[in-house]
Amino acid sequence: MTKGKIIAISGGVGGAKLSQGLAAEIPASDLTVIVNTGDDSNHYGLFVTPDIDTQLYTLSGRADLERGWGRKDETWNAMSAMRELGEDIWFNIGDQDLGTNLLRTMRLARGDRLTDITADFARSFGLNSKLLPMCDAPVSTQIRCTDGDYDFHDWFVAAQAEPRVTDVVFRGAEQASMTPEVLAALTEPDLAAIIVCPSNPYLSIAPVLAVPGLRQALIESPAPVIGVTPVIGGEAIKGPTATMMQGFGKPVTAAAVAAMHLDIFNGYIIDERDAEQAAEFVHLGAGLPVTTANTLMIDMSAKRNLARAALEFAKALR
Amino acid sequence: MTKGKIIAISGGVGGAKLSQGLAAEIPASDLTVIVNTGDDSNHYGLFVTPDIDTQLYTLSGRADLERGWGRKDETWNAMSAMRELGEDIWFNIGDQDLGTNLLRTMRLARGDRLTDITADFARSFGLNSKLLPMCDAPVSTQIRCTDGDYDFHDWFVAAQAEPRVTDVVFRGAEQASMTPEVLAALTEPDLAAIIVCPSNPYLSIAPVLAVPGLRQALIESPAPVIGVTPVIGGEAIKGPTATMMQGFGKPVTAAAVAAMHLDIFNGYIIDERDAEQAAEFVHLGAGLPVTTANTLMIDMSAKRNLARAALEFAKALR
Repeated sequence: MTKGKIIAISGGVGGAKLSQGLAAEIPASDLTVIVNTGDDSNHYGLFVTPDIDTQLYTLSGRADLERGWGRKDETWNAMSAMRELGEDIWFNIGDQDLGTNLLRTMRLARGDRLTDITADFARSFGLNSKLLPMCDAPVSTQIRCTDGDYDFHDWFVAAQAEPRVTDVVFRGAEQASMTPEVLAALTEPDLAAIIVCPSNPYLSIAPVLAVPGLRQALIESPAPVIGVTPVIGGEAIKGPTATMMQGFGKPVTAAAVAAMHLDIFNGYIIDERDAEQAAEFVHLGAGLPVTTANTLMIDMSAKRNLARAALEFAKALR
Repeated sequence: MTKGKIIAISGGVGGAKLSQGLAAEIPASDLTVIVNTGDDSNHYGLFVTPDIDTQLYTLSGRADLERGWGRKDETWNAMSAMRELGEDIWFNIGDQDLGTNLLRTMRLARGDRLTDITADFARSFGLNSKLLPMCDAPVSTQIRCTDGDYDFHDWFVAAQAEPRVTDVVFRGAEQASMTPEVLAALTEPDLAAIIVCPSNPYLSIAPVLAVPGLRQALIESPAPVIGVTPVIGGEAIKGPTATMMQGFGKPVTAAAVAAMHLDIFNGYIIDERDAEQAAEFVHLGAGLPVTTANTLMIDMSAKRNLARAALEFAKALR
């Protein structure tokens, strides 16, 4: 059993699975998840922050695990009504999910911080872990492609992540600052490990690291920073990680993902199916410690096993 | 069969019943409904205009006639989600209804006129009648009561219309102007009748008449203006009309309602149950022509009968 506080840095689905495993393996109140808000955007006048909601719904058992996003037992009547009124709806938000987004948007309009709103939502959902947005300032992701520039969801949802990416820009990130809550979590004396979840390195991890000071705080932390691969056997479990890596001319390997943010890692977990790739890590920087685990989180037991492997690896590296 | 165009001036439920009857009795494309927007307000960041939606839903067969507002086959999952997140929800909006309100709010934010949005919604719902908001400028109703001032829905919904009213103020009405569409409808050469529907005289008819120029246009119209009583046997069918009249020290009679806006009427329809009250109309102004009808619109047949009675009365007065 790991003692001390644990931080998970996470995007949406894959990261939420591991944070769910972590919350089950340690006292949930010892877990703080720092969540990507780089893909926040405005739809139907609502401030939508998908990764925070995925964390809220997953950690509280409200997520639709089959669909991979949104709430379970969801209905879609507001979107149907808008379609009936002639609107071209390509960004679906379920009715319950609309409630979350309406309330968040109202509270932001009143001047409440996203950090406080998220904390209140987490409390209402009965979570004991802390969920912290990476920052309170609005950040949005612009995808530069060979055929032009896209707002994140225009590219990810409407264009189904097909246009080839040449660059990813996080608008607003430079003007953002770490919240007191994120800073306090990262400098907590009792911090035992920082787990960088298996999320898209370009779209979920990079924006978190783009918040001024955050990358440096990870580098300076005495707690080991452990990365978990989002690719297995040359493919990403979900989302456009593999396609993007290919587009950037990179091999789709765990080592290539680790190399993108090499300065922050003290250790890296690759999938047991890719054990032979461990040798590649010797050539990364001064040689990054690597271990293998089953990173395919198909059920709660697999989530907990991976969480335990990450915690044990961190303990061994301390 | 009435020839020519017909205008209905209407608030929500009662008025929508009569406009539904009118749309069935004449070619629907000959009907224009000028709708109160005085009780528009903002809830959950959405621009809510209840009377327009009641008309849209009623005329297109989508209204929940039992509940008396909103859409039939409605779900309430967005509101439930907000309650689960700790929000005190006293103003309910169904999920399909949210779709209407989200889309309207988005379009208003883009600078579209309420008149155009309403026309598009009516077209999408297959309506052949015209639905015109009384104006495009935002108007809101403030209810002054013995115990303080209320925004309309704070008084009507949250306080259940219980605080005693001393005055009703239509904020923004003085700055509003008739839309080209309302002006064109009211000055249409082929206009055969203007029916003032059985809606609350303080809250639904007064705001329409407060739009600068609109009252005068009714007075100057060569088409007869026919009022239909919203009270039967000393009671209002629905809503706070009777209580408000009592609060203002008026008898709850059709003649007292007619007297409030006497300058616009050329004839008035009272309920057949109140036939003995017809004599009171002799004392109104120069003597207002009056007739009786069954004004209790319990089903489609009753709606059509009242519509026919109003059209015939207008014809007789031309």
